[in-house]
Amino acid sequence: MQTALDCYPCFLRQALSAARRAHADPAVQHRVLVATMARLSRSDSATTPIELAADIHRLVREHTGHPDPYLAAKEDATRQALALYPRLEALITNAADPLQAAVRVAIAGNIIDFGVAEHYDLEATLERIMQQPFAIDGIEPLRQALQQAKVVLYLADNTGETVFDRVLIETLGIPVTYVVKGAPVLNDATRTDALAAAIDQIAAIVDNGSDAPGTLLEACSEDFRRRFAAADLILAKGQGNYESLSQVQAPVFFLLQAKCSVIADDLGVPVGSIVCRPPDAGSLTDARPVSGEAS
Amino acid sequence: MQTALDCYPCFLRQALSAARRAHADPAVQHRVLVATMARLSRSDSATTPIELAADIHRLVREHTGHPDPYLAAKEDATRQALALYPRLEALITNAADPLQAAVRVAIAGNIIDFGVAEHYDLEATLERIMQQPFAIDGIEPLRQALQQAKVVLYLADNTGETVFDRVLIETLGIPVTYVVKGAPVLNDATRTDALAAAIDQIAAIVDNGSDAPGTLLEACSEDFRRRFAAADLILAKGQGNYESLSQVQAPVFFLLQAKCSVIADDLGVPVGSIVCRPPDAGSLTDARPVSGEAS
Repeated sequence: MQTALDCYPCFLRQALSAARRAHADPAVQHRVLVATMARLSRSDSATTPIELAADIHRLVREHTGHPDPYLAAKEDATRQALALYPRLEALITNAADPLQAAVRVAIAGNIIDFGVAEHYDLEATLERIMQQPFAIDGIEPLRQALQQAKVVLYLADNTGETVFDRVLIETLGIPVTYVVKGAPVLNDATRTDALAAAIDQIAAIVDNGSDAPGTLLEACSEDFRRRFAAADLILAKGQGNYESLSQVQAPVFFLLQAKCSVIADDLGVPVGSIVCRPPDAGSLTDARPVSGEAS
Repeated sequence: MQTALDCYPCFLRQALSAARRAHADPAVQHRVLVATMARLSRSDSATTPIELAADIHRLVREHTGHPDPYLAAKEDATRQALALYPRLEALITNAADPLQAAVRVAIAGNIIDFGVAEHYDLEATLERIMQQPFAIDGIEPLRQALQQAKVVLYLADNTGETVFDRVLIETLGIPVTYVVKGAPVLNDATRTDALAAAIDQIAAIVDNGSDAPGTLLEACSEDFRRRFAAADLILAKGQGNYESLSQVQAPVFFLLQAKCSVIADDLGVPVGSIVCRPPDAGSLTDARPVSGEAS
């Protein structure tokens, strides 16, 4: 996806919020904004939003000296999500269609996104999303793809959302490799954050070697790129993964809430929509080498 | 008021919106954003938000070649407000306290503000604000000040809001001089916009000689500054006038909705509050020369 001009004010808001979360004083906050504007002014129409976001959050970490400005927010989000876990499990147990219910749960968790807003109501979102019609409904293609695939490469998004992912992983019925970021950026999940959600009990955890808040293949490790190229089924959570992979030819299902107008317009859906977007027909029927192992 | 760092993303959003309203193509929109970021990067803690806003909207007009990007939005707003006018008049006629009701009407009109948001619901706002408790209630001091004053200097804010102002002016019971901007900026009312609301039928219209979206005294005409200094009662509408005059010693009542967190925090009220803030006691009891004429 290309960077929309509407992303510029949003990046500035995000940089300021990150600097404040890093306890920067007002002078440092000001320097972060000036550095962010300089970076934005140097970008051109070929710069993608995830490249910009990666650079801007790197700037924030450099200027504030804080390696993980969202640490406290991430720990809170995991705590809050773990408290909901028994209820999430019950939703699947009682569902007529457990796969669809689990996809909805995983999408509900995608509200925990400090890139888009400062606050969220997890329980109200869960209630809404268990009922809301899909704006793009790829549940049946996903069901079929799961019958063909041996392993799922699951690209994680945010911390706390990890707990909601766990519910979906437990429902998929095949081995899962759970991919986290290589280093902290925004509230994206790292290995530490995935462990806090006990993902290691149900999936192999690997990191992608990158600190971009999405999946910039060229910035990822060789190991991750090999896994990505070999995957016969990929689930990619959230806006960041959509922004960075929507034009990559691969067997990717995008599971997300369209929380901002730029993403919603790109997907052709209203803001607030829930989306399970299947890959192009060709991407799934490719005869790809299957690794046959989950890690 | 000082510029908050939170204003930076807001200025960028505003510049982009203004450029689009001026029908700028994406390349020009991008140039407007880059120029806006350069201006913001040059500002320091002494630069006030209204100085910045004035410069940024000037940049938009220069880059787009459009002298009044909000022209269509302003014409729409006046049309919509005029259609409501009979209902606004009836609200005052049927009110137990016509002055309080008219102040509420004038504050309700302050929702027509394209600096803060792209959309508003005029009728829902009116309904809410006729009932909502004041967060700062200066109605009684205003009632007393009106008994002492010979003329009101009424600093207008936005176009369309002008029609709501008309209802208050008709209720004040003393001559009013209605002050508009010297040139178009944002959706602020100019003389043309005030005439479209028929303000000339009930008040003398003067302009302040400035294109700032507030009242920067140093940028205003000599004539306006003389009126301001001589006034024994000033009503100032909206956030822009508050931002630029909140620290000026003068007999000013600020009538506004606190629509953004920066203004709300400065006033010490929640976002969404309605405010009729009286001047410091000293400012009203000053023995000032009274011009005794409305124009």
